[in-house]
Amino acid sequence: MSTLMHYDTNDLWKIEQVGFDEKFLGKTESIMVLGNGYLAVRSSEEESYVGETRDTFVAGTFNAFDENEVTELPNVPDMLGMNFVLNGHVLSLIQGQVSDYSKKLNLKTGELVRSFIWKKDEVVVKLTFRRFVSKARLHFLATQVQIENLSDQPLSVKVRSGINGQLSNEGSQHFTDGEKGLMEGRFIQMMPETTQSKIQFVQTSEHRFEGVELTENRPETARRGFYMNYAFDLNGNSSISFEKRSSIYTSIDKELSSNKVEDMRQFAVAELISLEELSFDDLLSESAKEWQKIWDKHPIKIETKNFRDQIAIRFAQYHLHVMTPAHDERMNIGAKGMSGEGYKGHTFWDTEIFMLPYFSFTHPEIAKSLVTYRYLGLDGAHKKATSNGYEGAQYPWEAAWPTDGEVTPVWGAADIVTGQATKIWSGFIEQHITSDVAFGIKQYLDVTGDDTFAREKGYEILVDTAKFWASRLEYNAKQDYYEICDVIGPDEYKEHVNNNSYTNYTAHWNMVYVIDLVAELKEREPQVYAKLDEKFDLKSLVQTLEEKSEKIFLPQATEDGIIPQDDSYLSKKVLDLTKYKEADGVDSLFHEYNLEQVNEMQITKQADVLLLLLLFEGLFDKELKEKNFDYYEPKTTHDSSLSLSTHAILSADLGKLEKSYHFFQQASNIDMGEYMKSSDPGIHAASLGGIWQMIVFGYGGVRIVNEQLRIEPHLPKEWNTLTFGFDYKGQEITVEVRPDHFIIEKSGQGKAIEFTSKGKTHKLNDSLTIFY
Amino acid sequence: MSTLMHYDTNDLWKIEQVGFDEKFLGKTESIMVLGNGYLAVRSSEEESYVGETRDTFVAGTFNAFDENEVTELPNVPDMLGMNFVLNGHVLSLIQGQVSDYSKKLNLKTGELVRSFIWKKDEVVVKLTFRRFVSKARLHFLATQVQIENLSDQPLSVKVRSGINGQLSNEGSQHFTDGEKGLMEGRFIQMMPETTQSKIQFVQTSEHRFEGVELTENRPETARRGFYMNYAFDLNGNSSISFEKRSSIYTSIDKELSSNKVEDMRQFAVAELISLEELSFDDLLSESAKEWQKIWDKHPIKIETKNFRDQIAIRFAQYHLHVMTPAHDERMNIGAKGMSGEGYKGHTFWDTEIFMLPYFSFTHPEIAKSLVTYRYLGLDGAHKKATSNGYEGAQYPWEAAWPTDGEVTPVWGAADIVTGQATKIWSGFIEQHITSDVAFGIKQYLDVTGDDTFAREKGYEILVDTAKFWASRLEYNAKQDYYEICDVIGPDEYKEHVNNNSYTNYTAHWNMVYVIDLVAELKEREPQVYAKLDEKFDLKSLVQTLEEKSEKIFLPQATEDGIIPQDDSYLSKKVLDLTKYKEADGVDSLFHEYNLEQVNEMQITKQADVLLLLLLFEGLFDKELKEKNFDYYEPKTTHDSSLSLSTHAILSADLGKLEKSYHFFQQASNIDMGEYMKSSDPGIHAASLGGIWQMIVFGYGGVRIVNEQLRIEPHLPKEWNTLTFGFDYKGQEITVEVRPDHFIIEKSGQGKAIEFTSKGKTHKLNDSLTIFY
Repeated sequence: MSTLMHYDTNDLWKIEQVGFDEKFLGKTESIMVLGNGYLAVRSSEEESYVGETRDTFVAGTFNAFDENEVTELPNVPDMLGMNFVLNGHVLSLIQGQVSDYSKKLNLKTGELVRSFIWKKDEVVVKLTFRRFVSKARLHFLATQVQIENLSDQPLSVKVRSGINGQLSNEGSQHFTDGEKGLMEGRFIQMMPETTQSKIQFVQTSEHRFEGVELTENRPETARRGFYMNYAFDLNGNSSISFEKRSSIYTSIDKELSSNKVEDMRQFAVAELISLEELSFDDLLSESAKEWQKIWDKHPIKIETKNFRDQIAIRFAQYHLHVMTPAHDERMNIGAKGMSGEGYKGHTFWDTEIFMLPYFSFTHPEIAKSLVTYRYLGLDGAHKKATSNGYEGAQYPWEAAWPTDGEVTPVWGAADIVTGQATKIWSGFIEQHITSDVAFGIKQYLDVTGDDTFAREKGYEILVDTAKFWASRLEYNAKQDYYEICDVIGPDEYKEHVNNNSYTNYTAHWNMVYVIDLVAELKEREPQVYAKLDEKFDLKSLVQTLEEKSEKIFLPQATEDGIIPQDDSYLSKKVLDLTKYKEADGVDSLFHEYNLEQVNEMQITKQADVLLLLLLFEGLFDKELKEKNFDYYEPKTTHDSSLSLSTHAILSADLGKLEKSYHFFQQASNIDMGEYMKSSDPGIHAASLGGIWQMIVFGYGGVRIVNEQLRIEPHLPKEWNTLTFGFDYKGQEITVEVRPDHFIIEKSGQGKAIEFTSKGKTHKLNDSLTIFY
Repeated sequence: MSTLMHYDTNDLWKIEQVGFDEKFLGKTESIMVLGNGYLAVRSSEEESYVGETRDTFVAGTFNAFDENEVTELPNVPDMLGMNFVLNGHVLSLIQGQVSDYSKKLNLKTGELVRSFIWKKDEVVVKLTFRRFVSKARLHFLATQVQIENLSDQPLSVKVRSGINGQLSNEGSQHFTDGEKGLMEGRFIQMMPETTQSKIQFVQTSEHRFEGVELTENRPETARRGFYMNYAFDLNGNSSISFEKRSSIYTSIDKELSSNKVEDMRQFAVAELISLEELSFDDLLSESAKEWQKIWDKHPIKIETKNFRDQIAIRFAQYHLHVMTPAHDERMNIGAKGMSGEGYKGHTFWDTEIFMLPYFSFTHPEIAKSLVTYRYLGLDGAHKKATSNGYEGAQYPWEAAWPTDGEVTPVWGAADIVTGQATKIWSGFIEQHITSDVAFGIKQYLDVTGDDTFAREKGYEILVDTAKFWASRLEYNAKQDYYEICDVIGPDEYKEHVNNNSYTNYTAHWNMVYVIDLVAELKEREPQVYAKLDEKFDLKSLVQTLEEKSEKIFLPQATEDGIIPQDDSYLSKKVLDLTKYKEADGVDSLFHEYNLEQVNEMQITKQADVLLLLLLFEGLFDKELKEKNFDYYEPKTTHDSSLSLSTHAILSADLGKLEKSYHFFQQASNIDMGEYMKSSDPGIHAASLGGIWQMIVFGYGGVRIVNEQLRIEPHLPKEWNTLTFGFDYKGQEITVEVRPDHFIIEKSGQGKAIEFTSKGKTHKLNDSLTIFY
């Protein structure tokens, strides 16, 4: 553990790294990533270091290096790197003396400020870098550099800054070395194109020196690079500042009037010229205003003994907006957002189960874009079903460009013992993704009441996924039931299991829901019915769904009240995980056991049965939940970042608030905390969605049960007040929870409703029940 | 200029870098490159630095990144990098205190030794790295690491070492992320394949710790990488050493019984196992023995006031053997050898005019391989001729795989002013390469008397190139002569000129030579004649050659005795270059003039007319040579590394020995000297061949004139003795030159012949004339 990460009790909007350590470059590169959903840049230092991962991503621009690799979000030529030579010394913080190093992200405004004092021989300088990716102009990013000569001797400064396309994704190069150009004598441009998906990029950078006498001002082209070289002298005890402004456009940008490379080049230059009247601060404040709209929408306020709880939710929301390509429904959220190369920018069930709820409840227009992505993914899902011999829509375990279908790599890292590549089975048999997508659609519809989406797209997805499940079921003649064999459930430590409860129950839900849906549509929405009927032959489909769903095997609780995770789990050996949990979790466990051995024990990577109990809480009573929580949690390593938030919410539901708050704090620290290596490949997007869920679902007690909104708050003892809000079917609801009462306010309703009598149920109307 | 480079008067076999400076990583990476003609590795530090260029090349394994890039020698996954963590500190010489840094290449044995003492907080260690690429086993390379704990406190050491495929050629990735494997529990293997040429690599590494208690010994796979992680503790004031042994095989290796990947994997492991009985020193000495064979063949000994002259020739010979793929006639020498990514590993006229003479005169079997490469290149040369509307063999300006034909990039770096890519004309119009190849073949035949090669391949090349020239000539009706318009001569500052003398004269020579050759073959070698006649229809070809060669325009000397470089050169403006030559040459000139302006002045980049006078000395008298030397040299910037050696030899011929020796010293220092940046993209191969030529041709006075060997020595005044030798038509000749006499010894002839009477000509026999 390091003590580099700092949080200020007096400013709960900022996270800061204090002091520089080249061993931990990845930490703040990731957790301080800047972005706006269109583009994102890891917050690497301007100057280069061995071990850095300098990434720029533009959402949706997937490319495959070759036929053996799946598509990934390519690392776009870097526009932020700069080299400095001061009196002949190359600026590097691993030499000389560094003091007052601070790298600080302002979550409220999206501004990153890095500053330090560097002494090397006779050189004493303070450098301050301010940087932002504009939330107001999706294609724009800028840096302001201030150099203060703290010595009384003159300082000679050389700066090399430009666009560097020699980077790659861990060695896989996704771009051509495209055309380059110098426009209007000062705008350097590079036009790389992705090698396989043929997406044309236009990257433009401009440097702005004002009131500085440049002794050198020289463009320099290189293979895959275009740089400007500047030199100037700085008197003793004086300072100068300059700016770099850049933009990125691509041929898949929807809003452009032309995506021709020549037009984009002209447009990009014209845009930068048009911004010349605006200062760096003007442009930053324009961007901060857009951020403020997010903060103003249902602000979450926590009065807590641990001030970091308040930062945690801001940290989570910041990242949820940085990572989400809200501007284009052909794009979705990557498992690492756009903060690193991990998981290749691919979309998993993480979206529907972990991040989508935040958007459905607070930014329904963004949620709509995310569910529309799944509608655009139907073709890919059909392709996958067909290639596996099934019908309907089988969603890909990993998704990239929506129509591409399954993009899970088939082969993973080589086994360290045999050296042979290990097969990644998730793309083949981790099939619960299809019910997760259906669940997400349904939750979106329940929360937003977006009937238009339902009629045009949502119902179709739900019917199509139910159709898949019907075809997926296997008839077991001996037992006379339908079952689902050879799958991976949410617990990925168990591969090739039969009748994973989570999978079977959610498949059953999907099918039964559609039976009811079709009946309802037939009666109430004949046009929608007719449209779907044309596609699906509903009468015959419903007949199949009815026959099969009646006979689907839904694993029932044992005598001890335990829902078996799958057919074999409960008969496996139990290992006491206490010592591993106290130590480093997964690492210490896997030093003693390999994956094959873990597969043969009752060890669970992440919430599996418990997630089922949480998502479908109406199906199970409290006693059963308690028993299963007590049974499974000790067997769970929480090695997936998707585990803790589920446990925190479920234990809050069960009144185990101390335990819950412990999970909450652990979960909040996955990225924000002191673990300096775990965020290297990128932040944990699902875990950040989980932070919002723990607060609003867990402690705010908000839930949709049987299509009804329920609010049943319970605060951890460390919290004095929790204020939050959400949109429910077009209405804005604000909730203020205190230990002894809580207040609900609906926008436009004038008066707030206060609940003080604990232990009672208040049914406000058909769709809103309050428990307290 | 830096003072890092050291040469020891007491050990004229070593070049050394003393002191570390991260600004100059490229210098000793290049000039201390290790290799054996099959593979070569730049001598990067084991630990990584920003700005390093960590290259491994295997000869002939060309690959093109995409259809917009030409093929290049790909940067093979690195097997030499190692990271060290000492008591938690990452080893890096740009932090902590470094003392006694030395990086030393032993030219005699091919061993690189790097050592330094590093202090960081409580850590005080001495590290010593010994490394070689085996000259005895072409696929093998090894490193020995010694760690001495100089403190009396225990030291914890972590080492990460393996195979790293995340590197590229300046961002262009040429390999797939292939299969990986751990064999026999300790041999890590990676099997990358080139993406376009589909050459399969098998790379195997083994680490050997003896008598060390490892606390960690953990394989780790990564994307494009496979590493071993080791940890151990070192008591105070103790030391340990370990070894890394590696090999590289590819599917184009000719000598293997099977090039199947599985067989190569097994074979590579079996080979490393079979070497286990041999120590690092055994393996190094086995390799040094092979080097010794080179040093024993015609050793060059210089008694000189400047000891670096002696090192220079060893430096040159070392590199000539590192860079030359003598094992495979499908491969040739790159303009940067295999010491860097510059010029993409491509073969230019540099081979025939600058490096081949060394091999023809001292290693005829290697020379044979190099000229055979041109025979294998005939198809590519036909392709190029046809595509340009010509006949015969038009050799590519840049050649890679022999049958690929022209691989000169069409577009170069973007113009820094317009930003537009500049067209590289050499591939289209620098046509003298075809006569250069013919010249090289002819010189090889004259020196070696290799009649078999002549009959089977050599004559065919000469006829085919003559056929090209005949088709290339343009008839000028006004002048009633044939001319060659729109070319680039050796002076690349003059593009699109007409009747470049070098081009016209050498084309003429090629055609006239073939006219005579055909007559001779018809009379004396009817079978060879018949074979060629079938291919070329010799009667008709000779008729054409006769008609055209008689009327070819050969620019004649002006009244002042100056051979015009081309039709327009002498009418251009003259610029006094004195001040630029005194300053930094090309840099200072191009700060004042751009290429277009230089094109319009009498400024020459490198020997052009003077090279013609040197290579075809029989055509021109001494007075003309002197006049032209005095005219052109002051107008020559020597910006090409191919220029100085030509000037040194020609001025020696002309008795301007002081001037000559000045050129010699300048030329010797191009790579070996103190210029710390100029070798970054690789050494200057032609210049190194030029070092041998300056000594043997320039001061030894050896030349073939009109198919006769001539020896006419003249020593610079700084030299007391020069001893050298060469093979001439199967006979070994040794020459010892002193200021007042010289001695020639022919092997098997017993007695040496001594010449003391200066100013006389001794015609020893029909093929050997001595001038003194």
